[in-house]
Amino acid sequence: MSNHSHPAPPIVLTIAGFDPCCGAGTAADLKTIAAHNCYGIAAVTALTVQSTQGVKSVHVTAAATLRAEIEALLEDSTVAAVKIGMLGNRANAGVVAELVERFKLPNVVLDPVLKSSTGDVELLDAAGVKFLREELLKRVALATPNVPEAEALLGIEIRDVTAMEAAAKLLVERGAHAALVKGGHLEKPVDVLYDGTEAARFEGERVRGENTHGSGCTLSSAIAAQLAQGKHLREAVLLAKVYVQKAMQHAYPIGKGPGPLNHFFRTQAESAPRGVHAEELHPVQVPPAEP
Amino acid sequence: MSNHSHPAPPIVLTIAGFDPCCGAGTAADLKTIAAHNCYGIAAVTALTVQSTQGVKSVHVTAAATLRAEIEALLEDSTVAAVKIGMLGNRANAGVVAELVERFKLPNVVLDPVLKSSTGDVELLDAAGVKFLREELLKRVALATPNVPEAEALLGIEIRDVTAMEAAAKLLVERGAHAALVKGGHLEKPVDVLYDGTEAARFEGERVRGENTHGSGCTLSSAIAAQLAQGKHLREAVLLAKVYVQKAMQHAYPIGKGPGPLNHFFRTQAESAPRGVHAEELHPVQVPPAEP
Repeated sequence: MSNHSHPAPPIVLTIAGFDPCCGAGTAADLKTIAAHNCYGIAAVTALTVQSTQGVKSVHVTAAATLRAEIEALLEDSTVAAVKIGMLGNRANAGVVAELVERFKLPNVVLDPVLKSSTGDVELLDAAGVKFLREELLKRVALATPNVPEAEALLGIEIRDVTAMEAAAKLLVERGAHAALVKGGHLEKPVDVLYDGTEAARFEGERVRGENTHGSGCTLSSAIAAQLAQGKHLREAVLLAKVYVQKAMQHAYPIGKGPGPLNHFFRTQAESAPRGVHAEELHPVQVPPAEP
Repeated sequence: MSNHSHPAPPIVLTIAGFDPCCGAGTAADLKTIAAHNCYGIAAVTALTVQSTQGVKSVHVTAAATLRAEIEALLEDSTVAAVKIGMLGNRANAGVVAELVERFKLPNVVLDPVLKSSTGDVELLDAAGVKFLREELLKRVALATPNVPEAEALLGIEIRDVTAMEAAAKLLVERGAHAALVKGGHLEKPVDVLYDGTEAARFEGERVRGENTHGSGCTLSSAIAAQLAQGKHLREAVLLAKVYVQKAMQHAYPIGKGPGPLNHFFRTQAESAPRGVHAEELHPVQVPPAEP
């Protein structure tokens, strides 16, 4: 007997590292998935010791444990999309590639996390990078590297948008079904999506401030959540980019370093909070639609 | 330079084990904390392999890693409340007790998780149970055992509400500032709160169905979130119980076993359909696709 009068929402699996300050990694993914009204489940590839001030150490999950985590989940639930983030090492990347194939997982979005955002901590070992490039890439619906990650994966230099388009096409030649190369570090931020047929540029606004911790994780899990709900790739990317931008605009500080995005900016504004005073709320200001 | 125009909400720290199906443990706590418009940060005491069908194995975090996780968080952020769940072993319980004391953590709610809900997997070792009873209990604002946990902690048998009241008082004599003994397994579910001065009974409705996975985790983190927002203990418990009951009523199946609570039932009901609202779309311009 059960009260299954409420149907389950689409289930999105995140395979990622755990960030205790919850701005990035598993927790950011789960918040993003929930904010899109999907249900998130999570295999943890590593525990990290970190605060908003940076990653202090990384404790990669044993491959056998990661395998058991994912198998237990997939034997129990049917997932509509998968987000892959930090993998840690070659062994874990191998487990993930094998299980993606064995369970024929749909809508796999790979955010190829290689280093911490400060750049000084390795989040995937060299053998893992090679495996990702040669094997895992073939099994994903979309890869979402930023420019430095695309450079590292492809062994090329990317200086402008034309080179970003070339990189996206190269990633698809290497086997990814589609690639989104993110140029957030460029003077005028622009992302390039190549879906195997055509390239599209997404021009964004630079959000002032430094509360961008976890924006890459958030973008890839937002895309996965949109794909889980049946959106086409291009619309999924567009909607996810808007979500990330708004979540950055509503960010707040929770530590001494770059703060997390505010993943629940929408529902916070819409819901009647319990125990929170009205003046503590920040209504979402929706700009008038432009022609 | 930062966009700190949005002040941070109260920060609630959860110290708990990670459940990959996200109905219990860390993920349930973080969802609960977010649903209360607080910001959750999390120290992971163990990775578990589990699905809705039960816990298959437990991989306890090394005490030095747990210590580093918590220290990194507390040196970076000021927390308004703490929820302690699964600890795994004596070493981790010791780390937590020491850090609660050193950082003078406020509003500590201890959910003394001892076994998996199916009862067959130990989630705190025997030395940990002893330490919890003799040392950790003294450092908490509230302990929230269910009847079997209270029996195990106190070495007594609890058969009725009168015995629950006696147990709650005993837990306070042992050092807890207050105790909530949960009688969800009784024929007519009732919880007993003893705050050091008087006992109060909270009579609940039995929610039909079996989607109760993580209800204990959810209750204790909801109480912590209410305390973080300045609620008095009795009101915090009442509001948290209402929240858990509603979240159970809105539960849905996500696997073959007992499903998770629906932690976001409020905002889901109130928010617009899935996805991004059309008016939010204006900032990203998509130029026509290029060939």
